[in-house]
Amino acid sequence: MTKQVRAARTRQALIRSAAIVFEQHGYAQARLALISSGAGVSTGALHFHFENKAAVAQAVVAEASHGLLAVSSSIRRRTDTALQTLVDTSHALVDLLARDPVTRAGFRLSCDGVRGDEPGLPAQWQRCVGELLDEAAAAGTLAEDVSRTDATAATVAATTGFEVLGRYESEWLSAPTPTGFWRLLLPRLATPETLPLLDPSGTAAAAEAVATGPDGHRTSGVGAAAPI
Amino acid sequence: MTKQVRAARTRQALIRSAAIVFEQHGYAQARLALISSGAGVSTGALHFHFENKAAVAQAVVAEASHGLLAVSSSIRRRTDTALQTLVDTSHALVDLLARDPVTRAGFRLSCDGVRGDEPGLPAQWQRCVGELLDEAAAAGTLAEDVSRTDATAATVAATTGFEVLGRYESEWLSAPTPTGFWRLLLPRLATPETLPLLDPSGTAAAAEAVATGPDGHRTSGVGAAAPI
Repeated sequence: MTKQVRAARTRQALIRSAAIVFEQHGYAQARLALISSGAGVSTGALHFHFENKAAVAQAVVAEASHGLLAVSSSIRRRTDTALQTLVDTSHALVDLLARDPVTRAGFRLSCDGVRGDEPGLPAQWQRCVGELLDEAAAAGTLAEDVSRTDATAATVAATTGFEVLGRYESEWLSAPTPTGFWRLLLPRLATPETLPLLDPSGTAAAAEAVATGPDGHRTSGVGAAAPI
Repeated sequence: MTKQVRAARTRQALIRSAAIVFEQHGYAQARLALISSGAGVSTGALHFHFENKAAVAQAVVAEASHGLLAVSSSIRRRTDTALQTLVDTSHALVDLLARDPVTRAGFRLSCDGVRGDEPGLPAQWQRCVGELLDEAAAAGTLAEDVSRTDATAATVAATTGFEVLGRYESEWLSAPTPTGFWRLLLPRLATPETLPLLDPSGTAAAAEAVATGPDGHRTSGVGAAAPI
């Protein structure tokens, strides 16, 4: 293993450990010594990668945003319509929020005001939803009387709510919740011709993207494209 | 002013001060001395009313829940349909989240897992939305192919999202946000005959309920009904 690969792995281990420590103790109470020991390295190694706690938090947020972007792009390649990509990506995001500490911490830190050079996770999701609705409109699959701004806001706000409410009631972050949301919303969003083609419970593309996503996710710090 | 009235006022002042301190410092960091001094009383006076910090937090949550219930009942008396009451109550809740520290702290403490004997604010809101949708269904104003469970979940999750996203971007908690949500959702929820009767931007009842609500809210600890 080259030095560069080792350094990248350590960085990813630190990000993952930080996500877990931020979740357990909160950002204010999180100690760097706990983050480094969780990654199996010294605090010196942590400081080689990150200047301070804020830099670690920003890296967690950036990692979570990149993960969402990778998952969304992967789903887009495997689905026929932008609206199905939107449904599938929301399912993948809910699944990641339920199971992946980096995505969850990235979301919470963004909501708690941690700001880096890159957009936080809700902002990244908002951009993604907006672009997919633009694409649906351009393809003529979005109902004409729907405001894309309204639909983007409702989708982003509801997903944010699922995460917050899911902290203490896990069914908010299980598949039936986004399925119910799309069962309600799709008949309003899609043209009558497109609606029968859409599955509110998501297609196999969502599960596949999440299954391959964490790998792409963990290796994204290496600077190489995800190999799968 | 009788002793009883004075005690009730002190209790309300403590709840309000606690809401502000919880918001500024977080629950874990909030000091009781800061809460009592914010209410202009001694820590002894605080301990006369509340056993510990958890009891203060539960009182904030209960106060916020009662406030929402009072506002919703007041709106129901002034609107013609259950769906308009739902729209108006969501506008009132968003307005309270933007302006009233007790509602905001009650919401956040509930989301952060503070549990008392009474339901937290999102749970109270969920019950309220569910009941109004049941009423709309019974009155034949709800579209027949809409699942009330789905509509309740989407409304509660989106409102929760507005609060979280509004912490750093205030437009999430301004009137255009719930208006956009209902502009999107009402054509799906309401029967074609009911839709033209509904105003997604809310009626005067919402603003009136919030204007009189905080009074009812502040005096609710006295055990008397709101006089207005």
